[in-house]
Amino acid sequence: MYSPWPEVGTPLDQVATPMPVIDEDRLAANIRRTQAYCDQHGKAFRPHIKTHKIVAIAGAQRAAGAVGLNCQKVSEAEAFADAGFDDILITYNILGAAKLRRLRMLHERVAHLGVVADSNATVAGLAGAFDAAHPLRVLVECDTGGGRCGVQTPEAAAVLAETISAAPSLRFGGLLTYPAPGGAAAIEAFLSGTMALLAAKGIDCPVRSSGGSPDLLKAHLVPSATEHRAGTYVYNDRSMVRAGHCTRADLAMHVLATVVSRPEENRAVLDAGSKALTSDLLGFTDYGEIDGFEAARIVSLSEEHAVVDISACKEGFPPIGSVVRIVPNHTCVVSNLFDRMVFHRDGIVTRVEDVAARGTVW
Amino acid sequence: MYSPWPEVGTPLDQVATPMPVIDEDRLAANIRRTQAYCDQHGKAFRPHIKTHKIVAIAGAQRAAGAVGLNCQKVSEAEAFADAGFDDILITYNILGAAKLRRLRMLHERVAHLGVVADSNATVAGLAGAFDAAHPLRVLVECDTGGGRCGVQTPEAAAVLAETISAAPSLRFGGLLTYPAPGGAAAIEAFLSGTMALLAAKGIDCPVRSSGGSPDLLKAHLVPSATEHRAGTYVYNDRSMVRAGHCTRADLAMHVLATVVSRPEENRAVLDAGSKALTSDLLGFTDYGEIDGFEAARIVSLSEEHAVVDISACKEGFPPIGSVVRIVPNHTCVVSNLFDRMVFHRDGIVTRVEDVAARGTVW
Repeated sequence: MYSPWPEVGTPLDQVATPMPVIDEDRLAANIRRTQAYCDQHGKAFRPHIKTHKIVAIAGAQRAAGAVGLNCQKVSEAEAFADAGFDDILITYNILGAAKLRRLRMLHERVAHLGVVADSNATVAGLAGAFDAAHPLRVLVECDTGGGRCGVQTPEAAAVLAETISAAPSLRFGGLLTYPAPGGAAAIEAFLSGTMALLAAKGIDCPVRSSGGSPDLLKAHLVPSATEHRAGTYVYNDRSMVRAGHCTRADLAMHVLATVVSRPEENRAVLDAGSKALTSDLLGFTDYGEIDGFEAARIVSLSEEHAVVDISACKEGFPPIGSVVRIVPNHTCVVSNLFDRMVFHRDGIVTRVEDVAARGTVW
Repeated sequence: MYSPWPEVGTPLDQVATPMPVIDEDRLAANIRRTQAYCDQHGKAFRPHIKTHKIVAIAGAQRAAGAVGLNCQKVSEAEAFADAGFDDILITYNILGAAKLRRLRMLHERVAHLGVVADSNATVAGLAGAFDAAHPLRVLVECDTGGGRCGVQTPEAAAVLAETISAAPSLRFGGLLTYPAPGGAAAIEAFLSGTMALLAAKGIDCPVRSSGGSPDLLKAHLVPSATEHRAGTYVYNDRSMVRAGHCTRADLAMHVLATVVSRPEENRAVLDAGSKALTSDLLGFTDYGEIDGFEAARIVSLSEEHAVVDISACKEGFPPIGSVVRIVPNHTCVVSNLFDRMVFHRDGIVTRVEDVAARGTVW
């Protein structure tokens, strides 16, 4: 059997493309910087593993001081529980007999497991799947402007918290939000408003968890939050540069791609399509940026090709056979497309790590 | 170890979500219908395995009468060569020492292997990697309006064909195009024009291969083409219904998803995000259609959530915990996200097949 994955010591220019590669030093710096910020502001930091799904990176995040992990799926939590992580928060409404059974098995082996709920239906399912001898910790998910899941008002949050508290098989763990960027005031108002209602009911609210990478370095603007969750910060990407979270010097992931065609003067084609980059735009009008050729525009993707408009490249564009480095719009979804991830330092491969729990359901 | 994949005989309503599922009868009908059309019009049919990447489906396509397989990557061809397929066309400009080495190994075990080229650079790389004792078949890729790869004129095609013919280690195999939908006249003009130039040079042009699923049933409008290649037709998807290729009764893939939240009167949230559906829009303004609730709009995806605007659902929308069936915009990219694929007949699981060669590079 052959392997497309490079040996340690291989120069990046000999790595098969399309291939995402992670810069070890930038990765380590991103982890350090974020943890230092959270430490400075007295916030617990809980990295979301969705971005990397790599055990060794979660280990580095824990070693830097992370309080535990954030997972989005039971299968992700299982993969990291297998690796010995004992504090995992699954920020998802877990529903259905199969997933609840898996969740219960997970609760038997993860010392500090938590989930979220935003409805009576989710709470009822959880309450029926666990028991008072070993209650499950449940946080109330609040919609503070993100427009995804979450109860809509502090009053609704307090009512649901009371329902959780009243269930012998559950333990109310606090409040959680996945906010829209720029929403610090709304988050603070929601959290503090709910805390006041809970205090009046005599319900303890130990954790108030906010999240998101774009506003990670503004977490101190939400004084009521005790912890922050973020994923993308570990690799960063084009959207994080745009959000002002980081500079191009903080981008830890690039996708290597080969120029495979130059059909016209102003068109080049790369071997990285939607099966390498995904078609996530995140508000951009093109599918990534080419390092050193920022005037080039990746105008369309098919599954294994990127079509690049190079008409604005005054300095020219590399010929067929050349390898270029793409800054992806969104790194979390790129991770999800590859079974393994290649790391390098100064352009020399340092290790190849398995991407855990991708391609599964639950 | 547990498995998220269901046992044969499991009803679909007990399958963990998000999960793409394939209707056996619709799949078989799609394969039959397309092959019958190509047989009727005297076109060889070469299915593109990118859509399914499943050995058993390629076997069904071959059994129905397909002349061989179309792959887009060397790794895909390797996976299907491992399964015994002996006629494989890789419709890609293969470049770089590592991939050329893999391609040569493939050529030693696949009786009928072909690739394409649209540049002297690609031809030179191929010519140097093979030898006259066992020449590689190379088709010239032509841009007949698709705007991706391909030489731009019949004159350029004829010149490149001559270069290939002159290389002792290569054999000119014919012409290939991946056209834009609706381009029959342009394809025919390009192919017939090039054939005339080649005939004048005394160069045989045995294969003229056109492709694409949306125009599959219009392949007879290109008389010069000897074969047609298509992938998506095997599952179909929302874009294929819009293109008029099929009806909703021909959709072989749905993605099962659970309603996990109903945060507001007009908002529902499903557990199928961009890591289950991808963010491919293909010209739509939403991320898929919900079977039976066509007035609902999947307005945004995050990685594990779909946000659904249900304001136009006069008939209401299923409550939290219900399972719905999503018609994906694009099935080929959904296949690429899952390690295995679940098949059913009348809602009962019939088999679970491995998705080959996903998550690899080359």
